[in-house]
Amino acid sequence: MTSPGDYSLDLARRAKVAARTLAPTLGQTKNRWLHLAADALIQRTPEILSANTGDVTAATQANLTAANIDRLRLTSDRIRAAANGLREIAGLPDPVGRVLNSNVRPNGLHVNKVSVPLGVIFFIYESRPNVTIDAAGLCVKSGNAIILRGGREALASNIALHAILQDALREAKLPVDVVQLVNSTDREIVGQLLKLDRYIDLAIPRGGESLIRRVADEATMPVLKHYMGNCHVYVDQSADLTMAEAIVINGKCQRPGVCNATESLLVHTDIAGKFLPRVTAALTAKGVELRGCPATAGFAPGVTIKPASEADFAAEFLDLILSIRVVQNIDEAIEHIAQYGSGHTESIVTRNLDAARKFTTEVDSAAVLVNASTRFNDGFEFGLGAEIGISTDKFHARGPCGLQELCSYKYVVYGDGQVKG
Amino acid sequence: MTSPGDYSLDLARRAKVAARTLAPTLGQTKNRWLHLAADALIQRTPEILSANTGDVTAATQANLTAANIDRLRLTSDRIRAAANGLREIAGLPDPVGRVLNSNVRPNGLHVNKVSVPLGVIFFIYESRPNVTIDAAGLCVKSGNAIILRGGREALASNIALHAILQDALREAKLPVDVVQLVNSTDREIVGQLLKLDRYIDLAIPRGGESLIRRVADEATMPVLKHYMGNCHVYVDQSADLTMAEAIVINGKCQRPGVCNATESLLVHTDIAGKFLPRVTAALTAKGVELRGCPATAGFAPGVTIKPASEADFAAEFLDLILSIRVVQNIDEAIEHIAQYGSGHTESIVTRNLDAARKFTTEVDSAAVLVNASTRFNDGFEFGLGAEIGISTDKFHARGPCGLQELCSYKYVVYGDGQVKG
Repeated sequence: MTSPGDYSLDLARRAKVAARTLAPTLGQTKNRWLHLAADALIQRTPEILSANTGDVTAATQANLTAANIDRLRLTSDRIRAAANGLREIAGLPDPVGRVLNSNVRPNGLHVNKVSVPLGVIFFIYESRPNVTIDAAGLCVKSGNAIILRGGREALASNIALHAILQDALREAKLPVDVVQLVNSTDREIVGQLLKLDRYIDLAIPRGGESLIRRVADEATMPVLKHYMGNCHVYVDQSADLTMAEAIVINGKCQRPGVCNATESLLVHTDIAGKFLPRVTAALTAKGVELRGCPATAGFAPGVTIKPASEADFAAEFLDLILSIRVVQNIDEAIEHIAQYGSGHTESIVTRNLDAARKFTTEVDSAAVLVNASTRFNDGFEFGLGAEIGISTDKFHARGPCGLQELCSYKYVVYGDGQVKG
Repeated sequence: MTSPGDYSLDLARRAKVAARTLAPTLGQTKNRWLHLAADALIQRTPEILSANTGDVTAATQANLTAANIDRLRLTSDRIRAAANGLREIAGLPDPVGRVLNSNVRPNGLHVNKVSVPLGVIFFIYESRPNVTIDAAGLCVKSGNAIILRGGREALASNIALHAILQDALREAKLPVDVVQLVNSTDREIVGQLLKLDRYIDLAIPRGGESLIRRVADEATMPVLKHYMGNCHVYVDQSADLTMAEAIVINGKCQRPGVCNATESLLVHTDIAGKFLPRVTAALTAKGVELRGCPATAGFAPGVTIKPASEADFAAEFLDLILSIRVVQNIDEAIEHIAQYGSGHTESIVTRNLDAARKFTTEVDSAAVLVNASTRFNDGFEFGLGAEIGISTDKFHARGPCGLQELCSYKYVVYGDGQVKG
């Protein structure tokens, strides 16, 4: 029986060796693997579903919520979608080896800033086996070795998927250690891996805030964090109210359980008397529970609006609940967002250029939108392709993290004998 | 008497408030401050020199090394140079608000990736008071508030400089808390500040490896690390040997005490018989102590070459000492660098295109040079302008860190009512 320490060290060392081979690998070889893996996932669907059925049965017996079981469950359609996701990643440009910036110095040195893989990524994520496929695809395409540690409820499914991904690596003549799986639910292994900054270049935790905090506390390597999204829509006094209503309804109702859903509505007092009655009625009709400041209730008589607490303004509901506040001016809206927001996504609805410029300049969030739904903050919508998460950090990567955000760079400098004077 | 915890919290909170005001400040206002500060440094030179004399006297009594005292000492010339440094920073383009990437989506959303300041930077550095001026200049120009914590030997000098920098902030009508100084040598304050990731966005430690490791261990915010530079020159079999000799001599001897000095020489066996006698003789004439593998000594009879240990190959000598190894081929050179190198700077001397491409692709260092001295890896030489340090990390910033590396970005998205389908 290997100890958690030895197991982790072996995994991390093998990942580092594999990463060195993968880094200079041609794009066509990485793309071949993506297509081989996609084909194999389709062909070996029965084997995947059989493993997944075991996970789902155990989760049902363990009384997991219906939502969690839904996230755990694979179907032929979901496997096909994940396989197509790999093919889409194959179609994206290679993020490695691009000259990001170039500079000829007065002494003739050609200085090129060239994108390179980060190296080894330790990815800790929810019990969602389709994420195993997406994450492996993104990491290999960006030239990184990945160590996967999925939620324990998905272990059998992940073992089946991992075997298929590794078989495709063999077929593509890539090192199998490019994609490794923590083949155990022992939490001690996670702790051990987080200490191995000598071999692991980045940890990406996904899931609840407590998991992310634990990883950030324990990790000796950099951590790409994705904390919560408490996203705001501010409806300015000059807003087109029909547009504003559509943006609020879409942000709140289109998919309330995700991080870029709208959680809080701020309304300029000058249009609150016109806007709040219609938007609160429309939201109520959609089944949204409203929690407002005292002024909100005053502007929308006849609509059920519960009093909002401080905690409501700070909350990420991930549900059909919306906090509402009437503000005296745009400065108060920006101040409210600075105080209660999570720096994820905020939107202003306005026809006033000064207001748009002020809001986009002064609101310090990963994405600041003008006249659009908060739901657009994701990698596909921003044109980055697939994403491994949405960073709420300001360091290295902010907002959606796609292939480019999984890369670092180095300076490659060509001279013809220059020495320093 | 304020406790270290209260003192740190007050400093950090005030920095955060000041950073919010500074972030959208116009470039011309920041540049005005840089010029006002430069003028004031010149005008108030006697006051600075008086404080510095106190520091130098105390350091002499405390038996600091001559090198350390030299780094601590300010002169009129050095103050003038630092003031000119601020004026040069004023002349650089504003790093904030640049559109780094732009993308029009099929639905009409205009997605712009825009550079923004990181926020609050906690800078921990050596007893070099001129660095106080450089660091404040770089941080303010990049829209960041800075908390300065210099070495304790320089405290009186830093207090004098800080007063001048803050007076210039008042004159430029910028918040004085944009530049704050830890006005105490209590180490507990450093520990407390490193816990305040709610207010501080980045810690940058400069100095010895043990300080950097301590900061990296204790910090709850990201840390930009600058570990050692064990820099290699590999002389390929096709190298122009006159060029190779000049590059080795320059890398080792031009300024041996800095991180981009050459510490190790790798020589292809096919040209070792021609190259080693001349380069070792030239190095010996320059007073360089040589520590070589057994083959090195064999190729250079009559030259004093001590046997190199494993520790010598891993060492950053920062002195007139060079380790030398004969390698069978370029792969062995790349492998040696992977094993012993620090990922800082490596150079290949070659006339062979395949060798140059292989070396630049497979060597994983912040800077990889072809036919040029390792001494060129710095911000000025690469065209970034002034730098706050050279990162040996791969995350966020790698290599020289100038104004752009002190920035993050956000997505600013303009629509006309888009909602997600």
